[in-house]
Amino acid sequence: MELEQARDWLRTAVAEARAGRAEGGIPIGAALYGPDGELLGRGRNRRVQDGDPATHAETAAFRDAGRRRSYRGTTMVTTLSPCWYCSGLVRQFGISRVVVGEAGTFSGGHAWLAAHGVEVVLLDDPACGALMREFVAANPGLWNEDIGL
Amino acid sequence: MELEQARDWLRTAVAEARAGRAEGGIPIGAALYGPDGELLGRGRNRRVQDGDPATHAETAAFRDAGRRRSYRGTTMVTTLSPCWYCSGLVRQFGISRVVVGEAGTFSGGHAWLAAHGVEVVLLDDPACGALMREFVAANPGLWNEDIGL
Repeated sequence: MELEQARDWLRTAVAEARAGRAEGGIPIGAALYGPDGELLGRGRNRRVQDGDPATHAETAAFRDAGRRRSYRGTTMVTTLSPCWYCSGLVRQFGISRVVVGEAGTFSGGHAWLAAHGVEVVLLDDPACGALMREFVAANPGLWNEDIGL
Repeated sequence: MELEQARDWLRTAVAEARAGRAEGGIPIGAALYGPDGELLGRGRNRRVQDGDPATHAETAAFRDAGRRRSYRGTTMVTTLSPCWYCSGLVRQFGISRVVVGEAGTFSGGHAWLAAHGVEVVLLDDPACGALMREFVAANPGLWNEDIGL
């Protein structure tokens, strides 16, 4: 895909991450786009806001998109490399592509997805990196809780 | 672990699956048990009930257990072999053990989990198998939707 398109879609995920930060939550956001570029769903990590450990940014965006018969041609856009849980979501449902804001602060399953046929677009977005670095420095325990470390 | 213990815990997951079936939902249930055998959370697939594609049985049980600092020593009990999404959940959060009711109607990521250090107890429970066979025969489209096929 065009990098310009990926960066444009990433803005939606970054807006979700920033909204999460403003709520005192973990600043990771995601969005699911359809084959024709339509926004199907968007969301953010809700561990703090809802006391819900099962809602990562990607699962929030997936839920927001509602029930669908197929994910062929869809793109999951996330501010951070997807953890195993969210990588498993992408693989199980046949989401075709993943746009990753950054994988410098945490490297999840994006290489595993690429090895299983998912198109992975790894950006090195400074805003995503800064969001995570600031958050992890200020809340190391909360971050470790969110990824089970 | 003792098979008798695994079969006892499986009853909780089967009760969830049957409750889901009674609601017109996908009959898969799960329960998360703690290191000392305490029930931490339980739940069932909620695609139909809540229009929520992100809540599989295992993620429902995980959510029901609330925020936790560690999953060391915990056991995820599920009526059906966990799909990639739910297998990723187990791996990411370091859940120590998975008890699988049956893997005959669907084989997910339980071997992958075993290869990554998770203790997998694969039962061949007739009730779990019957629940799924009856459901899939009556609702093939709904089942395919739930696993992204």
